[in-house]
Amino acid sequence: MTMDLAPEYDEEARLSAQAVLAQQVRELMDAVVLTDVSEDEMTAVTAELVALTERLKAARRDRPPVPELTRNGFRHLGNAVTGACNPHALPLVIERDADGSRADLEFRPTHEGPPDSVHGGVSAMILDHLLGDAVAAAGRAGMTGTLTIRYRRRVPYGEPVVGRAAATRAEGRKTWVDGTISLPDGTVLVEATGLFITPTPWVNAIPE
Amino acid sequence: MTMDLAPEYDEEARLSAQAVLAQQVRELMDAVVLTDVSEDEMTAVTAELVALTERLKAARRDRPPVPELTRNGFRHLGNAVTGACNPHALPLVIERDADGSRADLEFRPTHEGPPDSVHGGVSAMILDHLLGDAVAAAGRAGMTGTLTIRYRRRVPYGEPVVGRAAATRAEGRKTWVDGTISLPDGTVLVEATGLFITPTPWVNAIPE
Repeated sequence: MTMDLAPEYDEEARLSAQAVLAQQVRELMDAVVLTDVSEDEMTAVTAELVALTERLKAARRDRPPVPELTRNGFRHLGNAVTGACNPHALPLVIERDADGSRADLEFRPTHEGPPDSVHGGVSAMILDHLLGDAVAAAGRAGMTGTLTIRYRRRVPYGEPVVGRAAATRAEGRKTWVDGTISLPDGTVLVEATGLFITPTPWVNAIPE
Repeated sequence: MTMDLAPEYDEEARLSAQAVLAQQVRELMDAVVLTDVSEDEMTAVTAELVALTERLKAARRDRPPVPELTRNGFRHLGNAVTGACNPHALPLVIERDADGSRADLEFRPTHEGPPDSVHGGVSAMILDHLLGDAVAAAGRAGMTGTLTIRYRRRVPYGEPVVGRAAATRAEGRKTWVDGTISLPDGTVLVEATGLFITPTPWVNAIPE
């Protein structure tokens, strides 16, 4: 048991370093879209980034870190929306309570669609994942079948907003879920409804 | 006229350098999520990225590059989905033909949701934008009101797929649009329907 723990601890330390690296790349992404430095300086920074990219590619996995069950619960470090090790991810950090799934969010300049507002597609991306989490929070399993998004008001970035989702009904292999992105005062900005389907091979594996 | 052209040319050269920088950051993002280098090497690369981020922040705009009408048409270099200067963007490059809006796509490892597949939320994000473009392609103007996504099959990354969208009906301030993400052989992977609403101040500005 002790001999098993040592390498696992090392791997955790490495994944932590990868998460710190990914977070720094998120800050770099915002710096890129907002930068006002000279053409020469942009070109010089690009050249340095080429070298750093090559250093990271010196040892390369076939695929991003896969979903896994750890001692601290389920995680998917490579996920495009929630993955701490994936710079594309917000990352969305979800908490579950009696009301379902909840996430405190703060979008960034890289999420811009209409001026000063979050791209509607980015809101849809976040809600897709949050609604899927609410299916699991309700003790069900499923993949998104249909997702409907209703845009009510513009979503700001650079300030806190709140995502929420909860399963509303279940019937056989189907689970219905509602969700929102809101201002902290409760004003609803975007609404979503999802129908999730349990794939046939999973039906017998649904937790009680 | 000549005096006006010179600074514009300089600004275009700088935006081109920013687009090259953003593309390199996209390659860095994939390298980060796939890297298998040591913890020490990740930490060393992170430190270098901190320095490069600071260099880009030495001169900083208040917001990403805004939508603008250029001699070569409309563009939004800072957009989260289409912006060449935004590393978060695929970027989605849309062409318009008699059938509506079309985009050749190739998703990357940073877009992963289920193992070896594109995150459903990423597909939703892309379709939201593509359907909005089809509204404009039909000579209408509008913001997404309701977007419905139906997931049919898994979307692969690292290989070509095709996005398409076209307006199907218009009535007053409403425009309906259908879209898909498909394999090159036409197999539909994801379907979308959108209802777009022309904001009141825009009604009189709809092109003929």
